[in-house]
Amino acid sequence: MTKEELKRIIFEADTPSGKRFDIWLLVAIIVSVLVVLLDSVPELNQKYGAAFYIIEWVVTILFTIEYFIRIFISDKKLKYVVSFFGIIDLLSILPTFLGLFIVGSHSLIAIRILRLLRIFRVLKLIAFMNESDVILGALQRSKQKIFVFIYAVLILTVIVGTMMYIIEGAESGFTSIPRSIYWSIVTLTTVGYGDIAPQTVLGQTLASVIMILGYGIIAVPTGIVGAELRKNNLAKSKKVCSYCKFDGIEADDIFCRKCGYQLSKSAEK
Amino acid sequence: MTKEELKRIIFEADTPSGKRFDIWLLVAIIVSVLVVLLDSVPELNQKYGAAFYIIEWVVTILFTIEYFIRIFISDKKLKYVVSFFGIIDLLSILPTFLGLFIVGSHSLIAIRILRLLRIFRVLKLIAFMNESDVILGALQRSKQKIFVFIYAVLILTVIVGTMMYIIEGAESGFTSIPRSIYWSIVTLTTVGYGDIAPQTVLGQTLASVIMILGYGIIAVPTGIVGAELRKNNLAKSKKVCSYCKFDGIEADDIFCRKCGYQLSKSAEK
Amino acid sequence: MTKEELKRIIFEADTPSGKRFDIWLLVAIIVSVLVVLLDSVPELNQKYGAAFYIIEWVVTILFTIEYFIRIFISDKKLKYVVSFFGIIDLLSILPTFLGLFIVGSHSLIAIRILRLLRIFRVLKLIAFMNESDVILGALQRSKQKIFVFIYAVLILTVIVGTMMYIIEGAESGFTSIPRSIYWSIVTLTTVGYGDIAPQTVLGQTLASVIMILGYGIIAVPTGIVGAELRKNNLAKSKKVCSYCKFDGIEADDIFCRKCGYQLSKSAEK
Amino acid sequence: MTKEELKRIIFEADTPSGKRFDIWLLVAIIVSVLVVLLDSVPELNQKYGAAFYIIEWVVTILFTIEYFIRIFISDKKLKYVVSFFGIIDLLSILPTFLGLFIVGSHSLIAIRILRLLRIFRVLKLIAFMNESDVILGALQRSKQKIFVFIYAVLILTVIVGTMMYIIEGAESGFTSIPRSIYWSIVTLTTVGYGDIAPQTVLGQTLASVIMILGYGIIAVPTGIVGAELRKNNLAKSKKVCSYCKFDGIEADDIFCRKCGYQLSKSAEK
Repeated sequence: MTKEELKRIIFEADTPSGKRFDIWLLVAIIVSVLVVLLDSVPELNQKYGAAFYIIEWVVTILFTIEYFIRIFISDKKLKYVVSFFGIIDLLSILPTFLGLFIVGSHSLIAIRILRLLRIFRVLKLIAFMNESDVILGALQRSKQKIFVFIYAVLILTVIVGTMMYIIEGAESGFTSIPRSIYWSIVTLTTVGYGDIAPQTVLGQTLASVIMILGYGIIAVPTGIVGAELRKNNLAKSKKVCSYCKFDGIEADDIFCRKCGYQLSKSAEK
Repeated sequence: MTKEELKRIIFEADTPSGKRFDIWLLVAIIVSVLVVLLDSVPELNQKYGAAFYIIEWVVTILFTIEYFIRIFISDKKLKYVVSFFGIIDLLSILPTFLGLFIVGSHSLIAIRILRLLRIFRVLKLIAFMNESDVILGALQRSKQKIFVFIYAVLILTVIVGTMMYIIEGAESGFTSIPRSIYWSIVTLTTVGYGDIAPQTVLGQTLASVIMILGYGIIAVPTGIVGAELRKNNLAKSKKVCSYCKFDGIEADDIFCRKCGYQLSKSAEK
Repeated sequence: MTKEELKRIIFEADTPSGKRFDIWLLVAIIVSVLVVLLDSVPELNQKYGAAFYIIEWVVTILFTIEYFIRIFISDKKLKYVVSFFGIIDLLSILPTFLGLFIVGSHSLIAIRILRLLRIFRVLKLIAFMNESDVILGALQRSKQKIFVFIYAVLILTVIVGTMMYIIEGAESGFTSIPRSIYWSIVTLTTVGYGDIAPQTVLGQTLASVIMILGYGIIAVPTGIVGAELRKNNLAKSKKVCSYCKFDGIEADDIFCRKCGYQLSKSAEK
Repeated sequence: MTKEELKRIIFEADTPSGKRFDIWLLVAIIVSVLVVLLDSVPELNQKYGAAFYIIEWVVTILFTIEYFIRIFISDKKLKYVVSFFGIIDLLSILPTFLGLFIVGSHSLIAIRILRLLRIFRVLKLIAFMNESDVILGALQRSKQKIFVFIYAVLILTVIVGTMMYIIEGAESGFTSIPRSIYWSIVTLTTVGYGDIAPQTVLGQTLASVIMILGYGIIAVPTGIVGAELRKNNLAKSKKVCSYCKFDGIEADDIFCRKCGYQLSKSAEK
């Protein structure tokens, strides 16, 4: 097998053998992640611990071999190593080796699940990639608004947390300000565990205000991201002039607004 | 009674007798579902268990007879059997018979509630059907975006769950990674039972990040479905000119805005 | 004081004395509701129970007198009695008298808080009335979609509740199907009390699915109401042709689409 | 150093020394807020209490000096004192001095975190200011709708709270009407602590109705704010033609769509 053939199989998914390789890779990833998850359940660990241990090492060694082959056959070795998938590939084998020295760290193998992001490439789900681009794009463009929003929320939680610490005190579980801030976040986001809850009338009143506030301001991120997703929809519905390539043609325009080119022959008759 | 008459009564709802049949059917469905629900309450089961048992069997036998009559009078028998309502009709009688052999399975009779979907046909709520079409259509068209979103959320919960398992350990209730993943889902969706809750400072900090994240990313599905519902509104309100095929005609336009063709004869008088 | 003057004071709020009367009425309503609320706190009841009792009776007698004066001075007495505010006025005095015969029923006096809806009239908050019309209008127009949505959610909760009852059983608190349905509603709406929570792996898996589902489908009512509110905005931005009274003029139209009347003089030059 | 130079350094952030001053100020704010937070943790207070005490006083004295310099160099001294940042500057030094007389009040120092709002000025994040203007503007314009909404929600919670108090009684934790109202708010906003939860069938049924209601009406504020944010987007993208005053010019139009006036000189060349 030449280096070119190997590259095709491992890096691309458009040949039968390349696709087969990628599918086996996904199966191995899922199996190894499942093994980590199940191994953490005490009863299963007692029963099947040895088997899990072997599977973990077999998969890790296979992944290590695969990692070095990927480096070996890359033309720009460094580019692969520092790429998004290159780093994930490395992170997914390191924890097993680290586990030999640091107890408990081998659970980090669950990071391996990030390798499942390859699924998009394997299934050639270009459409899916587009969809995630749309979502990420909307989040990207509303980044500043979201930053301002989170900054304001954080300042609010610090102030509310301090007030609740003073009002409620240690008896109700508000033993320190950081813990009270944790409570404000739990409340403002409407998660509401109930492990800490106000007991005094004043505390419950303040908590009620925070809840209604939290209930109301959830509208803000929703509005922000929603407006961005919509803008995107509008952008998509615009068409391009076939003459001057102006891309702001709306569905019902007859002439291009920029160059005067007549757009739709069918409508002109 | 001829087969034709029977068909009209059972399958259609536009004759008085057909409507009466359907209404009695709905009553029987509601009664039998209520019986299953109430029978599961220990106190009521002790008192009225025997009566519930009789009602359940009476209704089941009636439903069984109805099911066979439906098959008998259908022109395309197989088509009915494998249709949506055909399968539900079968599923709603099976559990009672299964209950004879498998203890506990008779509770599955509650599936019978799906037969209540017939209500839309009985009440001739075409408008309601349209509404549910609008909702389902919006969900249908945003299917891919929603899939990408859920896939990303699942990967996030696995990673967060693993980190919390390492940080918190068994003392706080994070006894295994699957259980920690369950906790991340409970937290990210802002349900927050509180049966498992972080106790360490590091754990509470990570939990806070997840909560704010979950609070923020709820905006994504909302934005996606909202944008689809809106697109639908726009699409519905536009019509096509029958002369020049211009597709931006609004519901109350009398003349086409592009070619001057007179649109609605009724409005012109 | 003539009957006409009395009518002005009690029914209208546009004279100084009418306004003064309404403000004192609001104060009396707030005081009496507060008394009911505070009276229900055991410690306060023990201390100030007698005072609360006197205030409650004084306010109730005043309200009763006011109620009969309102009937007396109305031209169409029956119309007032069966009107929205007429019924609330009656409901807000009945519980005190009922409390003489039926123990506990006097707490129903809190219904009196509905009289606070008069605030909108007193403050002449026409703008506020418009706003609540906008909100109610949007809810009104999305009524059918919301009905279909709630109907689907209810069927879903019955099925999920039954499945959880079979999976979890009485040990985890799922003691009956109605209680399991209650749990599904608590979970699906992301409230999450935690008084009932799944303990088995299968139950927690199903619960996770429901949570993500509930997290996702919250987008549906948001999208529905949002789309309606938006439509309303669009409608408001439309203007009326001053010649033919056609109400679909858009901001940038120069000629009326219906009668050809030239709309904006400033733009024409 | 002249008074002019000092003014530049302290009030402006566009010279290197002015920027350096502001960054050190932010560092001091963060350190002092962290000290207050950590000092409230019993274990840390025992260990490092003395050090925390010293840091708190050093920062407070520095802030006090800074406050008086700010007053001293201001041209309009009163204007600074009563300005937003002037009040925050004062509030952030007062609690330490108050702590000498009133035990516990020194925790209020966490108010100092509001000084972090200066970050926007330091980083010259004009864009961020715009974003927060957009969000605040949308909230501002939907103020009336939000007021009506919260007013309606409060009336609803009082009525529901009273009903639950009558239905459930003290055994389930509904010991008084104010406490029941607190529970309704916790439930309606989907926070759901679980410290108080209905036990009777009737109570759980009513609670279910409230939850579904709360789940549904969260759509209202979302819709309101979303619609406002959108309007803003539309408004921002439109410009006015300087010749015919047509106000539907979009950002990338070269000619006015109504009168043909050439809009942007830079684009015309």
